[in-house]
Amino acid sequence: MSLSAAQIGELRAFAEQLADAAAHAIQPYFRASLEVEDKGGRLYDPVTVADKAAEDAMRTLIQARYPQHGILGEEQGTLAGSSPLHWVLDPIDGTRAFITGLPLWGTLIALNDGERPVIGVMNQPFTGERFIGTPDGAWRSGTPLKTRACAELATATLMCTTPDMFDTPARKAAFEQVAGQARLMRYGGDCYAYCMLASGFVDVIVEASLQPYDVQALMPIIEGAGGVITAWDGSSAQNGGCVVACGDPALHAQVVAMLRHAM
Amino acid sequence: MSLSAAQIGELRAFAEQLADAAAHAIQPYFRASLEVEDKGGRLYDPVTVADKAAEDAMRTLIQARYPQHGILGEEQGTLAGSSPLHWVLDPIDGTRAFITGLPLWGTLIALNDGERPVIGVMNQPFTGERFIGTPDGAWRSGTPLKTRACAELATATLMCTTPDMFDTPARKAAFEQVAGQARLMRYGGDCYAYCMLASGFVDVIVEASLQPYDVQALMPIIEGAGGVITAWDGSSAQNGGCVVACGDPALHAQVVAMLRHAM
Repeated sequence: MSLSAAQIGELRAFAEQLADAAAHAIQPYFRASLEVEDKGGRLYDPVTVADKAAEDAMRTLIQARYPQHGILGEEQGTLAGSSPLHWVLDPIDGTRAFITGLPLWGTLIALNDGERPVIGVMNQPFTGERFIGTPDGAWRSGTPLKTRACAELATATLMCTTPDMFDTPARKAAFEQVAGQARLMRYGGDCYAYCMLASGFVDVIVEASLQPYDVQALMPIIEGAGGVITAWDGSSAQNGGCVVACGDPALHAQVVAMLRHAM
Repeated sequence: MSLSAAQIGELRAFAEQLADAAAHAIQPYFRASLEVEDKGGRLYDPVTVADKAAEDAMRTLIQARYPQHGILGEEQGTLAGSSPLHWVLDPIDGTRAFITGLPLWGTLIALNDGERPVIGVMNQPFTGERFIGTPDGAWRSGTPLKTRACAELATATLMCTTPDMFDTPARKAAFEQVAGQARLMRYGGDCYAYCMLASGFVDVIVEASLQPYDVQALMPIIEGAGGVITAWDGSSAQNGGCVVACGDPALHAQVVAMLRHAM
């Protein structure tokens, strides 16, 4: 579905209202003592009171303002809408960062037009940073973002949240091949790492086991800054799974050629 | 050498002046475009202009105020003093965090009395956080710090900067044994992780290949908050190498028993 510049402007402003509401819900709980609930599954998956409160706050605003829009949220699943437009929400991406006190988590908000995410917000209230991407560009707290040139893996800085996220031997081996050729490797980062790639401080991110709500908000931010983010085979990243992001399209082509077979 | 409360107070205030000077030297370079110099060695070891400028600024202040004190700095090595008191400086601990734009690096400043570090400062100017430890306690920007109780590894949150820091198979295996039994594992963190342990959000940190200047400033902060930080065999951590920190002394005893043989 095609959106006008005026519609993009209105929806971007609304996405910022969602970010404000989520921050208001979350901030009392950051660095407070919390009990952690285990949802089960392969990895330990902490869920906090703050996560639920923030998603509730965002859903309430969306349903009041745009009742025809759909919603996909981490905590409460899918709400179908009559419009192809739908919001994809991760109230606290980087739950492990959150519960260990690190300011690398963020609230992720994407607006998907039915074909792809067109507006993305990553909000980090502790550092006071807000990253936004639209079809017109990307910004950090109002300042335009631009990825940096880095065409060769041998000179690239690579990030990945944890080597434990690669869930098959082939995927782990493919990641290790990329890591072995990169100039510098850094673990930890979650959504914050993608925003540092959009800002020109990281060249490549290789991850796996992502959910759609982990990645959709980051796509307009990276693309708006001149970067490329796709699945490992070069197809759209919007379904999550195995994702690769690069600041330089030439580097992306090189890395996809190394990862494609393992997807 | 034994220091009076008045001496501790004076030296703590001076350590804060060093942190201010380092922050002033570093801040123009954080998230600026920088060329990176490779000192060589096993791991890629980035050094920045900011690192050197901050160490210069701190050395100048120390030599003017306390010419009898020794200095051990990351960039410029050892300056012997006539006093047993010496300053141990790491202008930017977490260089990889720094160059990737993550606010997890810090300026580390320790005063060692000839037997052990007695004052420690970790300063993070981007988030505006200053962690201080003395024989009287530990504080984050003026608020007292207290580690949390967590006596069992099965309920513990573990941090480590990178699994690549374990430089022998025995050390890597010992780390993996601890990681396999912890409730939750998070990579990335550098000095910031130790301050989150002192703050009660992380239970155990297991690392290796540390330098004395990577760890000495963190010891008074963790000990002042009620935690324990030692080498893997329970001896003093002040020489770096293999280091383990725990918020709960009972957990420390459990983890040292698992690591001791691999040191």
